[in-house]
Amino acid sequence: MGLPALDEFPVALWARLTARRWRRDGAALLGYTDARGYPPLREAIARYAVTARGVRCTPDQVVVVNGAQHGVDLLARVLLDPGDAAWVEDPGWWPVRAAVRAVGARPVRVPVDAGGLVVAEGERRAPDARLAFVTPSYQAPLGAVLSLERRLALLAWAGRAGAWVLEDDYNGEYRYDAPPLPAVQGLDRAVHGDAGRVVYVGSLSKTLAPGLRLGYLIVPPALVEPLRQARGASDLHTAVPEQAVLADFLAEGHFARHVRRTRALYRRRQACLLALAPRLTHGLLELRPTGAGMQVLGLLPDGVDAAAVARAAAARGVVVTPLAAAAPGAAPHEATGGRGGLLLGFAAFGPEATRAALETLGRVLREAAAALPPARRR
Amino acid sequence: MGLPALDEFPVALWARLTARRWRRDGAALLGYTDARGYPPLREAIARYAVTARGVRCTPDQVVVVNGAQHGVDLLARVLLDPGDAAWVEDPGWWPVRAAVRAVGARPVRVPVDAGGLVVAEGERRAPDARLAFVTPSYQAPLGAVLSLERRLALLAWAGRAGAWVLEDDYNGEYRYDAPPLPAVQGLDRAVHGDAGRVVYVGSLSKTLAPGLRLGYLIVPPALVEPLRQARGASDLHTAVPEQAVLADFLAEGHFARHVRRTRALYRRRQACLLALAPRLTHGLLELRPTGAGMQVLGLLPDGVDAAAVARAAAARGVVVTPLAAAAPGAAPHEATGGRGGLLLGFAAFGPEATRAALETLGRVLREAAAALPPARRR
Repeated sequence: MGLPALDEFPVALWARLTARRWRRDGAALLGYTDARGYPPLREAIARYAVTARGVRCTPDQVVVVNGAQHGVDLLARVLLDPGDAAWVEDPGWWPVRAAVRAVGARPVRVPVDAGGLVVAEGERRAPDARLAFVTPSYQAPLGAVLSLERRLALLAWAGRAGAWVLEDDYNGEYRYDAPPLPAVQGLDRAVHGDAGRVVYVGSLSKTLAPGLRLGYLIVPPALVEPLRQARGASDLHTAVPEQAVLADFLAEGHFARHVRRTRALYRRRQACLLALAPRLTHGLLELRPTGAGMQVLGLLPDGVDAAAVARAAAARGVVVTPLAAAAPGAAPHEATGGRGGLLLGFAAFGPEATRAALETLGRVLREAAAALPPARRR
Repeated sequence: MGLPALDEFPVALWARLTARRWRRDGAALLGYTDARGYPPLREAIARYAVTARGVRCTPDQVVVVNGAQHGVDLLARVLLDPGDAAWVEDPGWWPVRAAVRAVGARPVRVPVDAGGLVVAEGERRAPDARLAFVTPSYQAPLGAVLSLERRLALLAWAGRAGAWVLEDDYNGEYRYDAPPLPAVQGLDRAVHGDAGRVVYVGSLSKTLAPGLRLGYLIVPPALVEPLRQARGASDLHTAVPEQAVLADFLAEGHFARHVRRTRALYRRRQACLLALAPRLTHGLLELRPTGAGMQVLGLLPDGVDAAAVARAAAARGVVVTPLAAAAPGAAPHEATGGRGGLLLGFAAFGPEATRAALETLGRVLREAAAALPPARRR
């Protein structure tokens, strides 16, 4: 789950850009740089985010980080004080709650439905929260897109409450059934201008590769200096050589090309999974596809334990993630009507690997269903 | 100050090792790795630290971080709770105090003298501290080496108090008048075994280059799992490609060679600075050299303001760091008998650059001395 198609990464091109940078810049890549990141990279990121994601910003507002999770961790440290409330999606990825708790603040679970985060419920539970974490493009992990109405309600609340919205643009590039929706950040700038409340979190772990540990924040003007200081006091900045190579990769159009190519590929890979799964899993996995993302949620028959299925599958070399492990707590239970859920990543796997994995999973599911007390079998 | 000779960095070799890694490993460099770092790098670091720095450890105890400051920040988050006391050297680098304060803990200043940290004074001021930060190889910024007697006293206190010792092996590789002293960590393992109290912090910003953002921790067995979890919850791990290249650089002996070469170079560069300074600064800068490190402390005449001199020099293109800026607080004043101090980095500069900088600094000092009220002039 969550792994992109690493074998599609243009390794030779990346190596060539790396060699060229060392040849051209040499020792200039070895010194300190701005804590916000290498300036040419910040320019290239701003240009990409404005064009491709509907963000409104200048390069001054860009902060390069070591992946989206690092950005969330850094923002929690800058924006939250001990005791502060912070909205988190329910169900939602656990690392966000960990980052909130790590600074002594209090995660307040806000439910999600088919329209994404239920903003009105957040306002009811914690109107004075300092921060709201949201995945508008693809609610992680269920896949809902945050509706326009909710986006506007979220921005209006943030403006009134003086709260920050952390927009994690998770899977923002990977939508297959429609053009990707522009980021909430652009809407925020239209509504609030320089007094914007949205911090945009961009990951390159999904669009490029997690091993590179690269991501970026786009922050309102008021947060530029606090972020710079926080980064300077923690690990100073991201390594310069890699930033320089990424700057070229973006500026020369390779990144946009790679995103287009992988988007078409993942659309095909999702279609393949959806076509093969019903038969190979013997109708024992009810898939809940969305027209986006890099994984599909599958619901198990009543009484079949997701964690046990995942363990049995892993023992045979197939890794699936129980929904409750990705998003622990009560709400995954509610979201699935009490049934167990498995998240199946499809982006990294071609048709043969997908077929083989589904066959294995099918055998595991059959055994799990057969082991149920007779009254519970379908 | 603090900048190594970046033009001596073997850029072509590093680029060649990078190209080879991409060619051989390709997509294998793009996925996630252990939060403690890429396993072959951890092995190479353990081997180096054992051989070159007298550390006792297995690769399991090595945690790769994004520079020494990142390591200190991470350790403060893992080891300190709000309200805890932590010994910090006085004078001592400000980022350490910032990391302690960032987690709500309380830095307790402990004076240093010619034997380094005055351990008995630390025990008097905060016997129940959770942590003691120390730079035993080269007290930052004054340059004292922590005496064997103090090392043993520090370890005995840490054992009794159940406190952690953060050994920042600052400038550990750069000693010119004697072989570098082995790390306190090795002594700790001899005294306490697996119940060791010392966390070793290694930087590659001084020995290689700060732009690479690479460093490492060597932690007692009890801290391996807490560190792994903390790193996993913050930015997951350091970028894999760079870790792989560094692993080769270490394993193939290039690193040890680079350290030997730069050690000889910095010895010559320090000698050059010490030979030229008295005449070129007109006797207005009293140098306090140590046989180690990458900078020399110079004391100003009574009444000459270090910050004003640094500003005037910077306006003419020469950057020197006032002692009180590197190590703010009362103690720099005590350490210099009330006189202002300037830290002069020498490692990055050849004879011509050193001569030109000293000439400029000499002019600035003459003007500053001439501007003193007549009674204060020497």
